[in-house]
Amino acid sequence: MAKTPERKVWAENYSDWFHKILSEVPVYDTRYPVKGTGIWTPFGFKLRKGVIEIIRDELEKANHEEVLFPLLIPDYMLGKEGDHIKKFDDEVYWVTHGGRDLLDVKLALRPTSETAIYPMFQLWVNAYSDLPIRIFQIVNIFRYETKATRPMIRVREVSTFKEAHTAHATREDAENQVQDGIAIYSRIFERLRIPFFKSIRPEWDKFPGAEYSVAFDTILPDGKVLQIGTVHFLGQGFAKAFDIKYMTANGGYEYVWQTCYGISERAIAALISTHGDDNGMNLPSNVAPVQAVIIPIVYKGKEEDVLKKCNEVKGILTSAGIRTAVDDRKEITPGNKYFAWELKGTPVRIELGPRDIEAATAVLVRRDLLQKTVVPISAIAEGTKKLLASVDEALGERSKKWMAERLTKVTSLDDLQKTLDSKGGIVEVPWCGGRGCGEEMEAKMNARILGTPYHDEMVVECSQSCVFCGKDATKAIRIARSY
Amino acid sequence: MAKTPERKVWAENYSDWFHKILSEVPVYDTRYPVKGTGIWTPFGFKLRKGVIEIIRDELEKANHEEVLFPLLIPDYMLGKEGDHIKKFDDEVYWVTHGGRDLLDVKLALRPTSETAIYPMFQLWVNAYSDLPIRIFQIVNIFRYETKATRPMIRVREVSTFKEAHTAHATREDAENQVQDGIAIYSRIFERLRIPFFKSIRPEWDKFPGAEYSVAFDTILPDGKVLQIGTVHFLGQGFAKAFDIKYMTANGGYEYVWQTCYGISERAIAALISTHGDDNGMNLPSNVAPVQAVIIPIVYKGKEEDVLKKCNEVKGILTSAGIRTAVDDRKEITPGNKYFAWELKGTPVRIELGPRDIEAATAVLVRRDLLQKTVVPISAIAEGTKKLLASVDEALGERSKKWMAERLTKVTSLDDLQKTLDSKGGIVEVPWCGGRGCGEEMEAKMNARILGTPYHDEMVVECSQSCVFCGKDATKAIRIARSY
Repeated sequence: MAKTPERKVWAENYSDWFHKILSEVPVYDTRYPVKGTGIWTPFGFKLRKGVIEIIRDELEKANHEEVLFPLLIPDYMLGKEGDHIKKFDDEVYWVTHGGRDLLDVKLALRPTSETAIYPMFQLWVNAYSDLPIRIFQIVNIFRYETKATRPMIRVREVSTFKEAHTAHATREDAENQVQDGIAIYSRIFERLRIPFFKSIRPEWDKFPGAEYSVAFDTILPDGKVLQIGTVHFLGQGFAKAFDIKYMTANGGYEYVWQTCYGISERAIAALISTHGDDNGMNLPSNVAPVQAVIIPIVYKGKEEDVLKKCNEVKGILTSAGIRTAVDDRKEITPGNKYFAWELKGTPVRIELGPRDIEAATAVLVRRDLLQKTVVPISAIAEGTKKLLASVDEALGERSKKWMAERLTKVTSLDDLQKTLDSKGGIVEVPWCGGRGCGEEMEAKMNARILGTPYHDEMVVECSQSCVFCGKDATKAIRIARSY
Repeated sequence: MAKTPERKVWAENYSDWFHKILSEVPVYDTRYPVKGTGIWTPFGFKLRKGVIEIIRDELEKANHEEVLFPLLIPDYMLGKEGDHIKKFDDEVYWVTHGGRDLLDVKLALRPTSETAIYPMFQLWVNAYSDLPIRIFQIVNIFRYETKATRPMIRVREVSTFKEAHTAHATREDAENQVQDGIAIYSRIFERLRIPFFKSIRPEWDKFPGAEYSVAFDTILPDGKVLQIGTVHFLGQGFAKAFDIKYMTANGGYEYVWQTCYGISERAIAALISTHGDDNGMNLPSNVAPVQAVIIPIVYKGKEEDVLKKCNEVKGILTSAGIRTAVDDRKEITPGNKYFAWELKGTPVRIELGPRDIEAATAVLVRRDLLQKTVVPISAIAEGTKKLLASVDEALGERSKKWMAERLTKVTSLDDLQKTLDSKGGIVEVPWCGGRGCGEEMEAKMNARILGTPYHDEMVVECSQSCVFCGKDATKAIRIARSY
């Protein structure tokens, strides 16, 4: 009797679907009267907290310490690293007045915190023994976006920016840290069951001030790519701009080597989008604010018995560590409760009525497939746990498969164009490696070059020609329509 | 052999003492180049997190839901409630530019969030069934302080502002909420072992836009008073300014009744200051990042045995839920380790050397009294837990006693002046109730009227005269030098 939920509206009208989820659950209220900002509702805040806990856990296990820096950055500090300021100059919000006074020094709302943190690294680092430093903070950042904004995805206040910053004695240590950062992010996205591809961004699209950037991209239901995390090797550029040096064994001084990496609420947008269907969200159990919801099926005269049993089952599940709620609202029918909790992505629903109680069983419904199972109440905790694990696994497999099907390899410009226009997703093509050729390709295809596949995803291609200029191809490059 | 730690420098040179703690632990780095801001270091962040968890726990138990609102408030919204804007107009930071563009609407960095949140209450509240609303958020707020700043106590960026906002159908419900807010705050400060007095602030010192304000004050080591929390009854003032109405049973509309209450990192400053002594901090175990530190007492040839046993004990304590660290740094003597962990306020130190291992015992030293106890290793978890509880209780008692001794009741202006000048703390005097008289008294005493004692601290005084004007006194009023 299982009805597999449709993913039609989800795929064909993703933008509407996403806005509906945010406003009807609600997750994030976009009616705040400053463009490109929003409010995390109680439900949204719990979901955000669950994601943050996973991010924090992975960073702490990898020896990162959490700190908190001020929001405001003096203009002379923001301007210290040349490439960095060139990029952010047009995107920064400026505080110019305190009360009625014009400030002596203009203060930027941080667009990211390199230029806030690294002047302090200069004070904190003296000797070799002060290294490595591995810190992170979770803060809001600001970008004066002139493009159309989109909730959680392109905003002016990024409310949930996790930024890690590290400093090391040698290039090798720092490059190892880049690999660690990539491993940490892979684990975070795997725990969220968000599929991703890792690409080394092209020279002209790396983080301003970095030597190179590795990005995590996912594909949204409309086939467009969303960047959900980046890891940057900064070399010694910032160290030189901010004079961050340590004393070496022989008494000389050496600039430190640095990395930084960031994740934002785009991860939450991806989480919601990737697993959704026409009925609403599907949340992996580790971030679901409620993992199992119990719906009393009430018949006249049996109300008390049923409610009592529901609360008893809630007690059993809570003791077993399952976040459980009983939806005992009187004015709403069971059917409408089903819809509401499906919308919220609650992985397991438990239906309990007089007949179930008589039979000492309960009906468990898994959110992803809307499949029913009957479980004896004596085994309800194990049954629910098993079902949660099964939902998690299925969500992971479905999203991975969906994404894998949207990485297409083609060898001609024509096929590239066709694939981008019809199927979307990421298209891998042979490329000569020339920047001019890459940028022309971006303009002509109205798409973005995501870069070359990161090592472990690399496929060695030989004897092919650049799809654009026809010269010998030196590498595969990924191209996509993107957010 | 117990040596009770001195509190001489702590009391006589509190300001230096406090700065030393912040910079030497370190807790909060004040060298960031924007006046009135600072950086929470890894240790400080953990301490802050512990305090936040207690605040969050008490609010959630009392049915408050956490949310997150944007930082920026358009000028026309900030200006909607007359008294509110009058107070904040001179204190607000203004964002005027995005990139190189002048913004159409000036945006304020929130000085507090009434004017950000209440326009959304207007959207969220329709029917009686939407009430009550009880939300809170933990955010940074900004005040352009023109007075001398002081780390955590008077800052321009308050990095840790917990603000709760509620809306109710009736005045009675809202006033009950004020009482609940006061009860919640009392529990929070009791869990932190921070002593307090509650006063109803005078008319001229209430929150701008409120009908009345109840404040929690503590006394710092220098005898000056620090406001650490406030609970406000807002009446319908903001509801009228922001048009927040609900439909009543008979189909009419009624404005909601509101309350709000806030706590900032001043609570952390009070926590550090209240319990400290000349050796450093004393942290209650619930917020101590490390509750028990194990110091290996190493003799040549025994290093490995000792370290092994230390890690074994750490395992036992960790399994018992005690946050434990082993300080196995080689280049530092045990004595210097003692100093470092005393400075950090770690409640229990465990010394373990070859002789202890032979005797199957460990030496436990409680931070507050620096008293030693010998405990068999077989009972080390229970022994440590008992000692932690004993430290907590002693810190609570000492701070409560210290504070109680600094509430003085006098009946003459002369004694008021003398008490303020010599002993400091809070002085309670009979007062006629006149605002003019109160404000003159503040000017003449160079002190602040904290207000009348809150109900449960009220002592009915009769047949006395106002210390200032000599008329019949109607109430007791509290006055103090304050931060």
